[in-house]
Amino acid sequence: MELTKEQKAEIEIARSSSLKTRRPTVPMLEEILFEPIPVLDHGFVRVIDYMGDDAAVVQAARVSYGKGTKKISDDAGLINYLLRHRHTTPFEMCEIKYHVKLPIFVARQWIRHRTANVNEYSARYSVLDCEFYVPEEDDLAAQSSSNRQGRGNILSGKEAKRVLEILREDAQMTYDHYIEMLNESEEGNIIDVSKEGLARELARMNLTLSTYTQWYWKTDLHNLLNFLSLRADTHAQYEIRVYADAMMETLRRWCPITFQSFSDHRVEGVTFSGKAIKVVKKLISGVHINQEESGMSKREWRELMEVIGCSE
Amino acid sequence: MELTKEQKAEIEIARSSSLKTRRPTVPMLEEILFEPIPVLDHGFVRVIDYMGDDAAVVQAARVSYGKGTKKISDDAGLINYLLRHRHTTPFEMCEIKYHVKLPIFVARQWIRHRTANVNEYSARYSVLDCEFYVPEEDDLAAQSSSNRQGRGNILSGKEAKRVLEILREDAQMTYDHYIEMLNESEEGNIIDVSKEGLARELARMNLTLSTYTQWYWKTDLHNLLNFLSLRADTHAQYEIRVYADAMMETLRRWCPITFQSFSDHRVEGVTFSGKAIKVVKKLISGVHINQEESGMSKREWRELMEVIGCSE
Amino acid sequence: MELTKEQKAEIEIARSSSLKTRRPTVPMLEEILFEPIPVLDHGFVRVIDYMGDDAAVVQAARVSYGKGTKKISDDAGLINYLLRHRHTTPFEMCEIKYHVKLPIFVARQWIRHRTANVNEYSARYSVLDCEFYVPEEDDLAAQSSSNRQGRGNILSGKEAKRVLEILREDAQMTYDHYIEMLNESEEGNIIDVSKEGLARELARMNLTLSTYTQWYWKTDLHNLLNFLSLRADTHAQYEIRVYADAMMETLRRWCPITFQSFSDHRVEGVTFSGKAIKVVKKLISGVHINQEESGMSKREWRELMEVIGCSE
Amino acid sequence: MELTKEQKAEIEIARSSSLKTRRPTVPMLEEILFEPIPVLDHGFVRVIDYMGDDAAVVQAARVSYGKGTKKISDDAGLINYLLRHRHTTPFEMCEIKYHVKLPIFVARQWIRHRTANVNEYSARYSVLDCEFYVPEEDDLAAQSSSNRQGRGNILSGKEAKRVLEILREDAQMTYDHYIEMLNESEEGNIIDVSKEGLARELARMNLTLSTYTQWYWKTDLHNLLNFLSLRADTHAQYEIRVYADAMMETLRRWCPITFQSFSDHRVEGVTFSGKAIKVVKKLISGVHINQEESGMSKREWRELMEVIGCSE
Repeated sequence: MELTKEQKAEIEIARSSSLKTRRPTVPMLEEILFEPIPVLDHGFVRVIDYMGDDAAVVQAARVSYGKGTKKISDDAGLINYLLRHRHTTPFEMCEIKYHVKLPIFVARQWIRHRTANVNEYSARYSVLDCEFYVPEEDDLAAQSSSNRQGRGNILSGKEAKRVLEILREDAQMTYDHYIEMLNESEEGNIIDVSKEGLARELARMNLTLSTYTQWYWKTDLHNLLNFLSLRADTHAQYEIRVYADAMMETLRRWCPITFQSFSDHRVEGVTFSGKAIKVVKKLISGVHINQEESGMSKREWRELMEVIGCSE
Repeated sequence: MELTKEQKAEIEIARSSSLKTRRPTVPMLEEILFEPIPVLDHGFVRVIDYMGDDAAVVQAARVSYGKGTKKISDDAGLINYLLRHRHTTPFEMCEIKYHVKLPIFVARQWIRHRTANVNEYSARYSVLDCEFYVPEEDDLAAQSSSNRQGRGNILSGKEAKRVLEILREDAQMTYDHYIEMLNESEEGNIIDVSKEGLARELARMNLTLSTYTQWYWKTDLHNLLNFLSLRADTHAQYEIRVYADAMMETLRRWCPITFQSFSDHRVEGVTFSGKAIKVVKKLISGVHINQEESGMSKREWRELMEVIGCSE
Repeated sequence: MELTKEQKAEIEIARSSSLKTRRPTVPMLEEILFEPIPVLDHGFVRVIDYMGDDAAVVQAARVSYGKGTKKISDDAGLINYLLRHRHTTPFEMCEIKYHVKLPIFVARQWIRHRTANVNEYSARYSVLDCEFYVPEEDDLAAQSSSNRQGRGNILSGKEAKRVLEILREDAQMTYDHYIEMLNESEEGNIIDVSKEGLARELARMNLTLSTYTQWYWKTDLHNLLNFLSLRADTHAQYEIRVYADAMMETLRRWCPITFQSFSDHRVEGVTFSGKAIKVVKKLISGVHINQEESGMSKREWRELMEVIGCSE
Repeated sequence: MELTKEQKAEIEIARSSSLKTRRPTVPMLEEILFEPIPVLDHGFVRVIDYMGDDAAVVQAARVSYGKGTKKISDDAGLINYLLRHRHTTPFEMCEIKYHVKLPIFVARQWIRHRTANVNEYSARYSVLDCEFYVPEEDDLAAQSSSNRQGRGNILSGKEAKRVLEILREDAQMTYDHYIEMLNESEEGNIIDVSKEGLARELARMNLTLSTYTQWYWKTDLHNLLNFLSLRADTHAQYEIRVYADAMMETLRRWCPITFQSFSDHRVEGVTFSGKAIKVVKKLISGVHINQEESGMSKREWRELMEVIGCSE
């Protein structure tokens, strides 16, 4: 991630602003406001604006005239209760806005979260920068043999080298041809005045899915938690998980009580089916039970045994 | 609308807060932050929090690193363009949160706007206050004879008196019975220790639809404009229109450029069908045309003639 | 629930229809199509239309050209997997439409489920029927002393009698006054030609929240499951739970495989927090642990002990 | 668009199905059910399922027990009224499901319509086919010089030839490298057993945005109209407009009354601002007015003059 001088200056101006407000304000989050948190080789996440805090959740749950909060321990108890019983509406009362730079194939996963507001940089309107994602060698995973949508061993040696070569060269070459077809440089200058240049909305289709795009993305706290619980999860693709991890840190600064509760109940929480609970009850009372007796499929049984740390 | 001493004190504390922030801040809106704007006889609207401003719309449309705004005239031009061509996503980047006190029958219309976040005061959990809407005599409209969902003349004399008597007495009596069934006073004290008291979630069903409820309601600027264009409209029921009118004033303070553009393009704007445009073209070029020739229904024709000020 | 002759005839005509279609069709659900299932004293739920079936979930998950289904056991395994891992989008590919008659205070809870389509009978436009909910004596619960939004013992004797008297008489009297103010009978005839009659949109506010309304309500299978998991739950108010129970039966007929999976994973399923899982692991391995050591609150601990059937 | 034998057979089986149903059924749409309508060089749209018809809109608006429809002319009048006054909820009562094959850059525009249900073919899970979009020579437009996101003249001669060469060769080469990195053929066979093969979720990033993907896409009639009014519009990119055009034809078969009304009020309809209406009124009454006097910007003025066919 290298910002231009102009971009850095714009961010500096925004950060130097200091205004008075009557609104709830979170100093821990203000500290990093507008600052890009680097993700992958050229990407970033930065918080652009926010509304509300832990107290706003409590205030909404109580529909109060003032802050509505009491002792911190009471507020934490209430937030725990709300999360545990999926009373989700009070969490919708907080809002956060990010500016994100990310590869297009990551953007395509991300956009599936529909309850959010998005403004993406338009490649119909502007020329895209020459930036594309190339994984670190440590992230060059082979296809998993057991999980059709997962990763296996890390590639190495000649195979790794060849993959990196392809990813780099193809992205560069298709970008060069993109510029050639546009007949317009990255900076917007016409290259050959005797030519017209293909429409931007057409030329972009020659770019690879590793190309970086950027957008403003805004959502409420409830939907942010949904996003994080799916995308900061080990089943998520690594390239989106690193964004979710960076956002977890912004959540910790923004709403520390909600963050704690979310970590316990959602990140580390697991849902047990009715059949699974019967198994757990038997095991606790010392009664032996095996997969066939449980009525669970082999896969479900294996997942359950992992969660409760039984090697059977 | 009479707030209790405690409520007034809570609002005063919130208003006296003065914190430093790097976020976009709107002094005109901060002025009235937390202050209830009276609506109807016991209702109010008050702005509790907000995020973004006119510049945030421009910034999102440009996906910029800094403010993204240029000259005010350029920003106004862009906002006009966005509204005119229904590029709605940049307006979703601003958010506002209201605390509203309103009669239940108004709340039932309001809640139909689904793209919003709501936390309502729970009558399963708490005892409702003894407050209900009784119209001013000037608002006691008869059923319209021409429009099945509209209002006609104002009732007067004995008929008006009788209506007010019914509305007042029935609301009071059903409330008194609500308290009797609860066996619990408005302040939460048990009335007769020898009785149990009906569950709150059941007792509430005895209240009339004129009873006041309250909620926190949060939405983005795009959906606020949708709400206002439908509810600040002359076709809206008077009792919800007064809330929309009060909110129009908060919009004027919050995003003055958007407010201007919205007034011109949406509030005063009208959509013409293909057939209507053909009629307009003919009239401009001095060619006579009547309803039958237009292919429009009588109703459509009448609506069109009203808009373009033709008496034909 | 008493339908008029005209309503019964309309339903009979709809039920007698027999058309040919290439679409997926579910005979078990067709059997009860259009038929009102009685709920409470005057309410009902009836399925008006549907789209898709269990196979459509599988087909969408596989983005197939044809049915996409294989053996029933494979389909069941896939549906289990999808529900367990919250891959919810394939369930959005099925849709169902209900016609529901329900008391207004129930409608006010129901409408909080925003991801649905609703058309409600308009009391601005038409006169409401004289039908209101009065609970059975067995459902006249007292306020719970332990749970601020729950029910306790059943009222009896004089207290029950008085409550029923109030609910019945107040609803009837406010309805009679509603008709008087309208100056229009239930059937739409003017009562006193020398009077104007209050606008319908105003008169309705005199009705109690126990009055019945009706609507068309349409949602997809994923959001139906969300609705049912919250409203067919023991924490839901009895008066909405009976609607959810009736709809569970329509689900069983419509998508039997999804119904089974949903029952096991969601209805009987429970989410354990990270702390709770640690407790379960210890108990299984025979290690003693108490509430203080667990780091859980007393309430969380109690809830956990209930789920795993430990009396400690 | 070339379907495999297996795909054709699956579609044939689906089309040969003939079941009895009590549901509203639309023979005109059943005729083309499941059949792919070709779009672009390898894409298609096909209707997979539907629910409701024109009568269902009327039925919902009237919350009726039976069909709710009257004479066709009355129904058309009501549908016109609903569309004209933006009473959109009755249109949400109909639902349609498509299977679409489309280039990824088109999919990225399409997905911005959030109120829809989507299941996309997963390139984390499966290998994508070697199919990519290459425009017809007639569609090889240059960048517009007047409109930053529009098209200008058609490229020709050597420039056109070079563009087509790039688009074809780059897409083919990046696809070949995709297969090489996967170490797996299009049919799923391992190519070189001594290698591992890169994870599918990584390898896909080497593909260009012209690559075809496919999805199931389901939405309600109201949101379909929104989609079509934006995407069947001349401002939409040609490559998505051709999909919208094909879907317009499915709408005409499905809901002919709504289609007519939509064409007149939305497709050919135009929204006039308050200022524009003042101009129109003056012109009709024969009073001269120019741009400066109108208070409109030059661009707005120009757009207005075009709509009303004035050359001034």
